[in-house]
Amino acid sequence: MAGRALAAVVSAGLSRFGKLDGFYAREIFAQAAKEAFDRCPNLNPKRDIKSLFIGHMMESTEHQGHTGPLIADWLGLNPLPAVRLESACASSGLALRCGLQAIMSGLADVVLVGGVEKQTHLATADATEYLALSADNFFEQWHGFTFPALFALMARAHMHKYKTKEEHLAMVAVKNHRNGAKNPKAHIQKEITLEQAMASRVVASPLKLCDCSLISDGASCLILAKPELAKRYTDDPVYVFGTGQASDTIGLYARDDLTSLRTTVLAAREAYKMAGVDAKDIDVAEVHDCFTIAEILHYEDLGFCRKGEGGRFVESGATEIGGTIPVNASGGLKSKGHPVGATGVAQAYEIYLQLTGQAERRQVQCAEVGLTHNLGGHGSTAVVHVYKNTE
Amino acid sequence: MAGRALAAVVSAGLSRFGKLDGFYAREIFAQAAKEAFDRCPNLNPKRDIKSLFIGHMMESTEHQGHTGPLIADWLGLNPLPAVRLESACASSGLALRCGLQAIMSGLADVVLVGGVEKQTHLATADATEYLALSADNFFEQWHGFTFPALFALMARAHMHKYKTKEEHLAMVAVKNHRNGAKNPKAHIQKEITLEQAMASRVVASPLKLCDCSLISDGASCLILAKPELAKRYTDDPVYVFGTGQASDTIGLYARDDLTSLRTTVLAAREAYKMAGVDAKDIDVAEVHDCFTIAEILHYEDLGFCRKGEGGRFVESGATEIGGTIPVNASGGLKSKGHPVGATGVAQAYEIYLQLTGQAERRQVQCAEVGLTHNLGGHGSTAVVHVYKNTE
Repeated sequence: MAGRALAAVVSAGLSRFGKLDGFYAREIFAQAAKEAFDRCPNLNPKRDIKSLFIGHMMESTEHQGHTGPLIADWLGLNPLPAVRLESACASSGLALRCGLQAIMSGLADVVLVGGVEKQTHLATADATEYLALSADNFFEQWHGFTFPALFALMARAHMHKYKTKEEHLAMVAVKNHRNGAKNPKAHIQKEITLEQAMASRVVASPLKLCDCSLISDGASCLILAKPELAKRYTDDPVYVFGTGQASDTIGLYARDDLTSLRTTVLAAREAYKMAGVDAKDIDVAEVHDCFTIAEILHYEDLGFCRKGEGGRFVESGATEIGGTIPVNASGGLKSKGHPVGATGVAQAYEIYLQLTGQAERRQVQCAEVGLTHNLGGHGSTAVVHVYKNTE
Repeated sequence: MAGRALAAVVSAGLSRFGKLDGFYAREIFAQAAKEAFDRCPNLNPKRDIKSLFIGHMMESTEHQGHTGPLIADWLGLNPLPAVRLESACASSGLALRCGLQAIMSGLADVVLVGGVEKQTHLATADATEYLALSADNFFEQWHGFTFPALFALMARAHMHKYKTKEEHLAMVAVKNHRNGAKNPKAHIQKEITLEQAMASRVVASPLKLCDCSLISDGASCLILAKPELAKRYTDDPVYVFGTGQASDTIGLYARDDLTSLRTTVLAAREAYKMAGVDAKDIDVAEVHDCFTIAEILHYEDLGFCRKGEGGRFVESGATEIGGTIPVNASGGLKSKGHPVGATGVAQAYEIYLQLTGQAERRQVQCAEVGLTHNLGGHGSTAVVHVYKNTE
């Protein structure tokens, strides 16, 4: 099915990301949905939407599971079929993939996909513990391996094998904060200098505070339609042309190589093939920079540069807005923020804006082909999607 | 698409249900998968299975989320794309529905769907609290509305409006224990008398201990294939002809009527229409008897009898094995047990056995059309599937 649109993105919405005190997850999702509905006046949500797929990682944070009907109810869309998907930080990337399958199956013409997380009300130690639920309980969590520690192992290995420097990691943070400063919905809309990044306190050596993404609240959504119905809802649809997903060991200790995430390689290969494109065709990408080292690994694993050259790739400026392959123009998880369940579809929201020329001060010029890359845990899940703004 | 097979069930597996001390959820799921793989020697799981959808309600019970890759890893099936679905006790019913969509989308020829839960190691109060996560946090959970209390309200309303008696509720328990006594995998394989049921201690009046389903460990799975590939894997496939799903308010207080679950009515209507059948065509059904009153509501909402007559319907013997529409021949959640994430697909496992003549001492004669009905929470989710043993 190379080169055929799987579904059209006919609208998209995003809440502000940050510390959203006074709102519950259900209310934050409604903010994102309202934007998507307002953007698409030809859509009658109650009549047209046939299914809801929602990514939500942690039921513990608000003592509330059953997120599917919770959200359907809060949006006034009952009896809309609704389900929660969880694959750690890739939860809404997989909501998108399941939404695509619903469209392609013929069971639904229009679906709502999205994600939500509320976590800033937690003590940091509690949030860190809940996030660690996506690592292996018996062989990682109980031994103190939180996510900064797990990604620190990857950073050490990459630095050892490829001479990647701590400054390279810091450059990812500087770039993403530069972009996020131009995103009015970003959690931290502030530039930082290389010196500030290098001087931030150590979290899990060699990762410092500025190497870690943010603990944020937020929600995201997309409205997907069958490609042939897209023009009924919008003059500027974006089309999903490729989807790829892969799993790897639940424990990092069981992997052959800490300097590459095999799930990213495999998911990208599948998505590229389905879309009939290659890495060099991508004009703009949102990748899962949960830690700065992760973005460097993804450059390599997605084929944007050769293995081992990720550090020098960011140093070259290639991934800046205006570079050859701008990465995380939104600010990424590092600056825009990382409400985990919302992140995958928030990436797709940014690509939707970029491919329809609505990204304002952070607009990538002449962007026609986009990519999102969403990771679950330390790469036990990866899901990649490829988008084009022409059918 | 009335009357067209959506997918074929080419194999199925079920762990024993009960208190499975010494096994983690991942290991229990592997027991179910092993049965499904052993039953299907023509299947090469690593080569043929293209996606895994797994229902799992509670990440808190083993402090372990990210169930999708966890299970893929434990089965030795990496890099199999895998995702967890959660919709309370309907989690694996929705894993089945998403698996169908994956097959119908053309993205996968063969998928593994299933569910798992491990909860008997918890204190009862903790299990009750975790289960209550699927009710509304702010308006139900904090006010002490556990699930027995919520279903007790429905029982009271039904008794008041339709003269249903406590004995009618007890008759559901007696029937399901009679069936479960013939199921070698059931949690409690023991018959009970009406007197014993009536004399059991009150949990939430009018519901007594014998009106409540069990807190169990267990896992279930199905292997689904494109209908045209079914005969490659088995001589006796069962086909899924209809799927239906609906959502309702997350809070019970917001409903117009406590004596009917609107989600069941709507999901059944959709599944019947898709399959081109009506309630009278169903030869054998597994319905969500989380409480005895629930089974009585479902008789009515699924169209097996008229509204208000559910109590007298069970009294008539119609839903016994050998009756006009045998319900919960497996023993149901009441006697077979209720490992919540596994329940939806465990129902489908029973229908697979029944429609292929493998149900041994509890076999329903001449069963050709089957139905499963899986509920999430107090009916905020319902999902119904219709099966036939001919294409």
